[in-house]
Amino acid sequence: MKISLIGSGNTATALSLALKNAGHTIIQVYSRDANNARLLASQLDAKAVSNLSEINTDSDIYLIAVKDDAIAEVAQSLNLYGKIVAHTSGIKEKEVLTSASENFGIFYPFVSMTKGAEIDFSNSLLMLEGSNSNTLDVLHEVAISLSNNVMKVETKQRQSLHLAAVFAHNFTNHLYSISETILEENQLSFDYLKPLIASYFQNLQTISPELLQTGPAVRRDTSTIKKHLELLEGKEDLKEIYNLLTAHIQGVK
Amino acid sequence: MKISLIGSGNTATALSLALKNAGHTIIQVYSRDANNARLLASQLDAKAVSNLSEINTDSDIYLIAVKDDAIAEVAQSLNLYGKIVAHTSGIKEKEVLTSASENFGIFYPFVSMTKGAEIDFSNSLLMLEGSNSNTLDVLHEVAISLSNNVMKVETKQRQSLHLAAVFAHNFTNHLYSISETILEENQLSFDYLKPLIASYFQNLQTISPELLQTGPAVRRDTSTIKKHLELLEGKEDLKEIYNLLTAHIQGVK
Repeated sequence: MKISLIGSGNTATALSLALKNAGHTIIQVYSRDANNARLLASQLDAKAVSNLSEINTDSDIYLIAVKDDAIAEVAQSLNLYGKIVAHTSGIKEKEVLTSASENFGIFYPFVSMTKGAEIDFSNSLLMLEGSNSNTLDVLHEVAISLSNNVMKVETKQRQSLHLAAVFAHNFTNHLYSISETILEENQLSFDYLKPLIASYFQNLQTISPELLQTGPAVRRDTSTIKKHLELLEGKEDLKEIYNLLTAHIQGVK
Repeated sequence: MKISLIGSGNTATALSLALKNAGHTIIQVYSRDANNARLLASQLDAKAVSNLSEINTDSDIYLIAVKDDAIAEVAQSLNLYGKIVAHTSGIKEKEVLTSASENFGIFYPFVSMTKGAEIDFSNSLLMLEGSNSNTLDVLHEVAISLSNNVMKVETKQRQSLHLAAVFAHNFTNHLYSISETILEENQLSFDYLKPLIASYFQNLQTISPELLQTGPAVRRDTSTIKKHLELLEGKEDLKEIYNLLTAHIQGVK
């Protein structure tokens, strides 16, 4: 397939390198920063452009991998009727692409991106949507050349995966960060928790988190909960989080 | 050392087996359930007792490994002046042991216990407290026979580790459980999150969670946050958790 990339960030970089490796031809790379466009295009034997009006119609597929809030604006500057235009966001509706082409869709790789790192998409979940069956079929053909884990989804499924990852990744990280702060205030290292965390993650591989709940909340151990809240005296923000999650574990909220 | 165990649950079982393996002599095992006492005592060549009044004074150290809320009551039934009495709780004060002996302390192994499983304590953190320096020294001698990671601590340090583990273990698990529910409601498996979680835990080995925070909250991506809250429409409990953790990540709370 002939593919053009709009964007030069982590997703655009990782995807375009993987697409080239999979045998596709990258025609153009757009970035509003001409240097970034050149840098990435040079790795792909592609042409760099830094003005949306320079994007030509030589490709079959145009992948928009820019920041979520920039997708609609970029799409409005594109005239690619007859071509397939897809964005890579986990949360934005595909309909923001309506002005760019009647053949619009989603090409969402669910993977943690790091700039420059060559990512192996072969086991990464790739979620697809399409405004019509031909668009979906073409995106599917490209997707299976990258990944063994391709899924045609409804918009709400894709967005729900994105939401679930906020709970399971961003919010959990914040709780680890809170626990690190509590430890450091008591001259203890976060390292002491690592064996516990490692053993938990071993269990999480095969057991549902619903069955792994332990601790004073689920045991309804009120004297321990009371002691914990005493330890958090003066930290109203942490007490609020403690109380809310404890109540929710107990099914009170 | 000659040691008696009061309790026959996960901690008592794992500790007593490890102590015997380390060359100590287990004199008596107490459980109010005579069968449990016999079952554990038989693995230790120890005598089983199911009445606290049968606990003799042949041991040097008495380890109380019963449920937190039972420690004080058990201690009040013991007369072991001159002996060393320690409990294994992460949260209870050592002073609940005052009535059992003037030589009281804490022997807290920070490890996830599973009944019956023989636990290798050699790399587990073992936190110690003592009512006097001799008590602390004797507990230390026993502790280093089990673990390379022994630490004399203040009460607040031990309790803070216990509290930190609630954030880093019990509360994080609950967030994984919430994310599983969100996925299942959309016909998606929790398995899809596992590669993301695995890659996160790889990073957590060497990078502070404070530096690993990503997602819409820390990016102050209000349009994504708004969309997530729309997806949670009708689930007021989850919206409350989402809003509180988002505000805390942003430093607003």
